Amino acid sequence: MFNFAKSHTFHRSVSVVIILCSITLGVETFYPEHQSIFDVLDILFTTFFTFEIVIRLIAEKNPIRFFKLFSFKNKKIVIDEEGVWNWFDFTIVVVSIVSLFGHLYEHPEFLVVSRLFRVLRVLRLLEVSTELKAVERKIVSIVPTIFSFALLLGILLYIYSIIGIYLFSHHQYQNADFTTLGHAFITLFQLMTLDGWSDMMYSASASYNDSWLIKSYFVSFVILTAIVSFNVFVAVLTSQVHEKVVEDQKMNKKQIAQLEDEVLETGEEVQAGFKEVLNELKKLRDEVKTLQDRLEQTKR
Amino acid sequence: MFNFAKSHTFHRSVSVVIILCSITLGVETFYPEHQSIFDVLDILFTTFFTFEIVIRLIAEKNPIRFFKLFSFKNKKIVIDEEGVWNWFDFTIVVVSIVSLFGHLYEHPEFLVVSRLFRVLRVLRLLEVSTELKAVERKIVSIVPTIFSFALLLGILLYIYSIIGIYLFSHHQYQNADFTTLGHAFITLFQLMTLDGWSDMMYSASASYNDSWLIKSYFVSFVILTAIVSFNVFVAVLTSQVHEKVVEDQKMNKKQIAQLEDEVLETGEEVQAGFKEVLNELKKLRDEVKTLQDRLEQTKR
Amino acid sequence: MFNFAKSHTFHRSVSVVIILCSITLGVETFYPEHQSIFDVLDILFTTFFTFEIVIRLIAEKNPIRFFKLFSFKNKKIVIDEEGVWNWFDFTIVVVSIVSLFGHLYEHPEFLVVSRLFRVLRVLRLLEVSTELKAVERKIVSIVPTIFSFALLLGILLYIYSIIGIYLFSHHQYQNADFTTLGHAFITLFQLMTLDGWSDMMYSASASYNDSWLIKSYFVSFVILTAIVSFNVFVAVLTSQVHEKVVEDQKMNKKQIAQLEDEVLETGEEVQAGFKEVLNELKKLRDEVKTLQDRLEQTKR
Amino acid sequence: MFNFAKSHTFHRSVSVVIILCSITLGVETFYPEHQSIFDVLDILFTTFFTFEIVIRLIAEKNPIRFFKLFSFKNKKIVIDEEGVWNWFDFTIVVVSIVSLFGHLYEHPEFLVVSRLFRVLRVLRLLEVSTELKAVERKIVSIVPTIFSFALLLGILLYIYSIIGIYLFSHHQYQNADFTTLGHAFITLFQLMTLDGWSDMMYSASASYNDSWLIKSYFVSFVILTAIVSFNVFVAVLTSQVHEKVVEDQKMNKKQIAQLEDEVLETGEEVQAGFKEVLNELKKLRDEVKTLQDRLEQTKR
Repeated sequence: MFNFAKSHTFHRSVSVVIILCSITLGVETFYPEHQSIFDVLDILFTTFFTFEIVIRLIAEKNPIRFFKLFSFKNKKIVIDEEGVWNWFDFTIVVVSIVSLFGHLYEHPEFLVVSRLFRVLRVLRLLEVSTELKAVERKIVSIVPTIFSFALLLGILLYIYSIIGIYLFSHHQYQNADFTTLGHAFITLFQLMTLDGWSDMMYSASASYNDSWLIKSYFVSFVILTAIVSFNVFVAVLTSQVHEKVVEDQKMNKKQIAQLEDEVLETGEEVQAGFKEVLNELKKLRDEVKTLQDRLEQTKR
Repeated sequence: MFNFAKSHTFHRSVSVVIILCSITLGVETFYPEHQSIFDVLDILFTTFFTFEIVIRLIAEKNPIRFFKLFSFKNKKIVIDEEGVWNWFDFTIVVVSIVSLFGHLYEHPEFLVVSRLFRVLRVLRLLEVSTELKAVERKIVSIVPTIFSFALLLGILLYIYSIIGIYLFSHHQYQNADFTTLGHAFITLFQLMTLDGWSDMMYSASASYNDSWLIKSYFVSFVILTAIVSFNVFVAVLTSQVHEKVVEDQKMNKKQIAQLEDEVLETGEEVQAGFKEVLNELKKLRDEVKTLQDRLEQTKR
Repeated sequence: MFNFAKSHTFHRSVSVVIILCSITLGVETFYPEHQSIFDVLDILFTTFFTFEIVIRLIAEKNPIRFFKLFSFKNKKIVIDEEGVWNWFDFTIVVVSIVSLFGHLYEHPEFLVVSRLFRVLRVLRLLEVSTELKAVERKIVSIVPTIFSFALLLGILLYIYSIIGIYLFSHHQYQNADFTTLGHAFITLFQLMTLDGWSDMMYSASASYNDSWLIKSYFVSFVILTAIVSFNVFVAVLTSQVHEKVVEDQKMNKKQIAQLEDEVLETGEEVQAGFKEVLNELKKLRDEVKTLQDRLEQTKR
Repeated sequence: MFNFAKSHTFHRSVSVVIILCSITLGVETFYPEHQSIFDVLDILFTTFFTFEIVIRLIAEKNPIRFFKLFSFKNKKIVIDEEGVWNWFDFTIVVVSIVSLFGHLYEHPEFLVVSRLFRVLRVLRLLEVSTELKAVERKIVSIVPTIFSFALLLGILLYIYSIIGIYLFSHHQYQNADFTTLGHAFITLFQLMTLDGWSDMMYSASASYNDSWLIKSYFVSFVILTAIVSFNVFVAVLTSQVHEKVVEDQKMNKKQIAQLEDEVLETGEEVQAGFKEVLNELKKLRDEVKTLQDRLEQTKR
């Protein structure tokens, strides 16, 4: 069972079914009148993916390891990528199965969510292609760099939301909604993307007597978020370029280290050489000494 | 014939005609009432380009090589740039000739396409200037880097399109159209460019009872595509900077390798030197030995 | 007192209160009807922060040093970050205290400002987290790089504002307001962000007989600001990447310098070795000389 | 005269007047009713700048050199920055003087242009500050890099303009104007900045039976210009970072070259040392030889 789950055949057939399933979901949108056919196909796919996950679960000797999300290395949390994907696959399968019996208790919100989960199967295409997985890993790898900046942006949004609610005292203008914190967040997010921000500014400042305060509120927010976003960009780019350059320089360092070894070796050779020469010279002097002694003896 | 096709005169005259043709196409838009004059000019240009391609085809000894689009090198497909341009030129000429006899079977769509093809002659300006060709090659060279990211973006668009069609059940709002997969793609592409995305969000969420689900659908899509696009950017930039830096470091490595050779040489010199010195010393000791022997003889 | 102000306990409890205060400010927006409760909480927070700043002031032996904003180093102004934060905290506390007695002289504008100052307490979250402080420092560090570009952008805005007021002779169109310098600045800032710039252009050029002059005014401004903004970006990124690479190369240089030392050392070893060998040889020759002298004596 | 024009006093007083003139131009917009005062100030400034340029012209021994725009160096055109600024200053002064007598022949367009020229005096602020001049030089320095890309973008705009005029047969929609080549250029430029591009697309495709052709026209243009703009960015950034890194590596190379010299020197020292040692040894052997000869003589 273990060998089968890790076999090329198994992996390839799963890939094919994932691709087929993704295409089916797209085709489904063109024929809303033939829903029953796609319901049958959905049952087939759900069955297949259920068997797939069961096979993979059995193949793994330790089921806890299958669901392991992270491990500790040098007191740092290292996220286990495979475990995350396993949880992802498992959750989709469970929700799919439950949704098959969903008609038992007709709850509209549940149906919408279960349908959304079915569409997430398309994301499994990332598991199929190694290149896409590499891209996904690259994108995830910049998360730590942008985390602090995102937090700062969050604080900025929070402050401006509260100020906005104060300034406009829970009013809602045509394009800018400052009734609650949530709506203010959405409004300020829209402001951040610069989409129609001037309309928001003009509609908000029109019904206010001190329009310069309002205008500086909007303009300062636009400038501040632009600066922070810009810094996110610079930080990620700098760290990425740095990483690449460092990789090269490691090679350089290795080369220099090798050169250093050679210099040291030459130095040792020189020392050994001199030692030998001096040794020889000592012997020679000894011999000359004995020669002198002999001569002395001859003289006497 | 071969020499003529490769000659400077031929290349230059073709360049001049391409530029003239490009200008004519622009001038044509100002005088729609003198269409007949431009039709005559079009026949002249078509004739010229027909002769040009025939000359180039004859000049090439092997006509198959003229149309070769790619070759294999180390089991990798290498696209033959010249072949692509040849195909491009050839197709334009063929379509131009056919369109001259287009009035025989008046088909409006065919006429539009043939006219568009005529305008593509302006793109031949890239063939004229070596600098523009360099730019074109630079742009093409980043395609492999962005391919995986484009695929990921495509998957994201696909998932959100299907979810959108589910959520809005094939409805069309003022700015957001979720009737079919194609329209949803266009709608989400517009969302990606951030052009009027908030209007789309508000018009779509207005006719929905659970507005937060809809809002999170739009906001999450905007954030996700921003992140992916940002990563495309970072990936291309990093690889380009890396390439440039690596080029320099190759020079550096060469310099260090040369230094290494010199150190090794010095080391060998040292060894050779010591060998010679020790040899000399040995001879000296031998001589001292014989001296001692002589002295011994003298003593006796 | 000094020890307590620098203690971990003090720092941690202040951090907790800052976070609590930030959350309270957010919660307050959801319950505008319970303003009295939040007024009490505000008094509590104000009291706490007053005591905090008093403790920190007493702990600092030199109160002038507490408020020191910058110092001179090598004839350059170095901004004292801690001093800036101290001023920030102090100002908030003072305004908060004054606003508590603000009902004595009901001045609406003062109330708004004092409320805004209360919200700025959330910014103290940056003081709590070292990571956020690092991000803040990074953002501040690019200010000198962008300063000149911002000045250039300012001059550009100034010139176009004056030209705009001349061209449209203090008129106000639907989206573009050229009545005063201030309004023209806002209008051109909006143009810079490309938000609805075409609508501005069309509404302004519609009521003008020479529409191409107006259009070139808008288009040239858009292109110029795009170029300048782009250069800001390039300048910051280049300097940041440069900095990172330089850091690495310092390591490289250190390694090479170390290698150089070793080469020099080997050279000195060689010289010392040869000196010793030559010395030995000299002694040997002296001995051979004396041997010769002895032999001479023997002969006589 | 020459010394005065190059003196610190002259330069500083000119700077002060430029700044004053810039401020005056801004203040003028606030008091359109006191035009006569500003007309007098304008005459004063014009007089000052006339004298300034005359002094600078006289100070320059060779007036042709004053107006020299470029020189040849190694068969390349090198633009003389100072000459460009001289032309700039000179043109403003001439236009200002002419405009003072402009009431003689009241021509409205001439008045507008002369007024615009007066505002360009603010640009002379760049001459005052060395930092701003550095920024200006930096921006100008990227022009060669972006030139080819701008040309490519121009060709793209040209092709799409002609196609657009064909497709929409000189029609003008609410937001998209395809009547002439010029209007099509503006329309496509707007499309390039992504400002309201979807509104343009929808309004243009609404009155067309084959809406997918129209949509692909707009979408392809948006994607192509985005790719080209992106490449401009990458090209400039890469070349800038490369330049900076190369500068550092020159230092590195110098260091390595120095190290190489030291290794070579050590090598030569070793050779010289061995030569000396061998020489000494040869002398020693000669002496031992003579010793042997003596012994031989003694024996006999």
